[in-house]
Amino acid sequence: MIVYLDNSASTKVDEDVLKKMLPYFSDRYGNAGSMHQKGLEANNALAYARGKVAEMLNAKEEEIIFTGSGSESVNLAIKGFARQKKKGHLITTKIEHHSVLDCFEELEKEGFETTYVEVENNGVIDPNKIKEAIREETILISVMYANNEIGTIQPIKEIAEIAKEKKIIFHTDACQAGNSENLDVKNLGIDMMTLNGSKIHGPKGVGCLFKRKGIVIKPQILGGAQEFKLRAGTENIPTIVGFAKALEIAQKNKEVNNENITKLRNHLIDGLLKIPNTLLNGDREKRLPNNANITFLNIEGESILLMLDHYGICASSGSACTSKSLDPSHVILALGRPYEVAHGSIRFTLSKYTTKEEIDYVIEKMPAIVERLRKISPVHLSMEDIKNG
Amino acid sequence: MIVYLDNSASTKVDEDVLKKMLPYFSDRYGNAGSMHQKGLEANNALAYARGKVAEMLNAKEEEIIFTGSGSESVNLAIKGFARQKKKGHLITTKIEHHSVLDCFEELEKEGFETTYVEVENNGVIDPNKIKEAIREETILISVMYANNEIGTIQPIKEIAEIAKEKKIIFHTDACQAGNSENLDVKNLGIDMMTLNGSKIHGPKGVGCLFKRKGIVIKPQILGGAQEFKLRAGTENIPTIVGFAKALEIAQKNKEVNNENITKLRNHLIDGLLKIPNTLLNGDREKRLPNNANITFLNIEGESILLMLDHYGICASSGSACTSKSLDPSHVILALGRPYEVAHGSIRFTLSKYTTKEEIDYVIEKMPAIVERLRKISPVHLSMEDIKNG
Repeated sequence: MIVYLDNSASTKVDEDVLKKMLPYFSDRYGNAGSMHQKGLEANNALAYARGKVAEMLNAKEEEIIFTGSGSESVNLAIKGFARQKKKGHLITTKIEHHSVLDCFEELEKEGFETTYVEVENNGVIDPNKIKEAIREETILISVMYANNEIGTIQPIKEIAEIAKEKKIIFHTDACQAGNSENLDVKNLGIDMMTLNGSKIHGPKGVGCLFKRKGIVIKPQILGGAQEFKLRAGTENIPTIVGFAKALEIAQKNKEVNNENITKLRNHLIDGLLKIPNTLLNGDREKRLPNNANITFLNIEGESILLMLDHYGICASSGSACTSKSLDPSHVILALGRPYEVAHGSIRFTLSKYTTKEEIDYVIEKMPAIVERLRKISPVHLSMEDIKNG
Repeated sequence: MIVYLDNSASTKVDEDVLKKMLPYFSDRYGNAGSMHQKGLEANNALAYARGKVAEMLNAKEEEIIFTGSGSESVNLAIKGFARQKKKGHLITTKIEHHSVLDCFEELEKEGFETTYVEVENNGVIDPNKIKEAIREETILISVMYANNEIGTIQPIKEIAEIAKEKKIIFHTDACQAGNSENLDVKNLGIDMMTLNGSKIHGPKGVGCLFKRKGIVIKPQILGGAQEFKLRAGTENIPTIVGFAKALEIAQKNKEVNNENITKLRNHLIDGLLKIPNTLLNGDREKRLPNNANITFLNIEGESILLMLDHYGICASSGSACTSKSLDPSHVILALGRPYEVAHGSIRFTLSKYTTKEEIDYVIEKMPAIVERLRKISPVHLSMEDIKNG
């Protein structure tokens, strides 16, 4: 039995999505830039996909830029905008994905000033702290829609309003929000938004940047007029078609899916918190329907993962992008949790394919795993030790 | 009947390639960075693909970086290397793909000095001219392996030797060379080489950069440790697997394919040159087996393409990446041909799927198309006018 609970790392491509993609490999394989019927076929598919994505985001077609990944979109938005402006002050938070944090670090080297806003203990950003961070020279605010580790949903509508008032551009990394949240950019008041195919039951290798008309950014991949001269390279039609279909399916079914997934996720959280010395990371309510991030005190996250894997349960500690690093999660640390807590945190992320049986199985297996690992653990802290610092 | 002769723009994904890719969409959909069996499945596929590509190039596994396109690889190689060096002089040629030329233009703005070497009238670079362009401060030479418009094959082994002697890094854009040419980087003496899935009957959305061990470049997409910290973003396993398989098929069958395709291509050239006032662009011998680039005097390239398309023949004028521009090809102009010649040039690019019947069909249809368009043309030059300048 395989219980896949790592959907924030990668999702199964929906069979209906794959079906849409298939003709574009060996049949409709033209280059969308070519002036003949095979090119037109590709170009039509591209235009249809762009239209569909625009519709889902309540945006204009010329505001949708397809890229090769969520990371690429984030880089394009943040570095592309900042470098166009040449100087200024940039605001983000301490719990962003490394694609955002690494861009900020790079821009610091190029002379930009930056502020990393602290997060509250529940993993949610206080919009007032964003407001306080704003300076005369602030040009960009980038706050993620939902955190990739603890699933907390950020008040991006309020932050967008603050940004708008001060005429500052607001980008949100919505890679984790595509399945369950409202993506209406007009309603949310967003200037730029990053999405990612591989997190919404679409294919890997495709991202999307919504960029409100009129905002000028510098391209990072040069060499052709594709994507409104913002991203050179032959358009990857199969994955773009797949991305559009995945986004459509996700957005159209989100109410039903959210209800089902929330129920299962709550069942999982309740089940796991029955194990002694465990705690939920991130706000219980303001979180993605599919996310449960639990600390099992006195155990190394990696050991739990190995044991879980032995039972066919796929989960993660932190984000997949940093899995090869031994550093504890910067997100859990930002919650004010001590080092030991960050180290024993496990992220379970469900999907529309997750079943009650699977969750029951995890709840059944987990106590013994935890007990066994705690027996061999060199650390023996209790919740009280943690609370007393 | 559809006769697809635009294989330098995009190729049909080989059915065997697609078969290899398929399991990685909805079955083996893990993130290669995840610490569980679904992650391991993906990571194993990634490692296997990297090993296979390394084997095909006679390189080490850690010298293979997967990217999202040929353009991205070129940008990573050229801008990544130059920006790491911070200053210096860069050499390329006037007939490169725009991904190279646009990087050079960008680097000029950043303070780098550049030289664009002229090409001989046959479309081949004289290595001596590269040698003459070298200065004390030269840090990088980038010369394409084979031209994407006229198909001329460049003396990259000689150029690599010159570069090595002067301790200058040599990058070659080999996007068009993957199907037919020797890609042994040791034998060729190359430091960096760009390849592209969509030109070798592999998928779109995947490129590869070979970078010799020890060469330091700056990443352009930041945010994760993937691809030896040189390209952040979840690894696109299906297309990477597809790329490796496509490269393997192409390289293993290149002798047989080259022989068959050359025969058909020569048949096409001979047939088309029988039409009065036509000429072949680029050296007759030193060219890709699949390329025929022909000028039909006194006709606009676009008109020919439309007529060809009417008969189901897919060809192109210049490169697909610039098809939306009305400027004449910079490559044909670089051959010393007048403006009128550049405008009436058509590229036919064959593949292993091209048949004798298809070529016969083109040879049969073309004279009437040319005659009809010349009748309505406002220009009436002859070959003599062109030759007399």
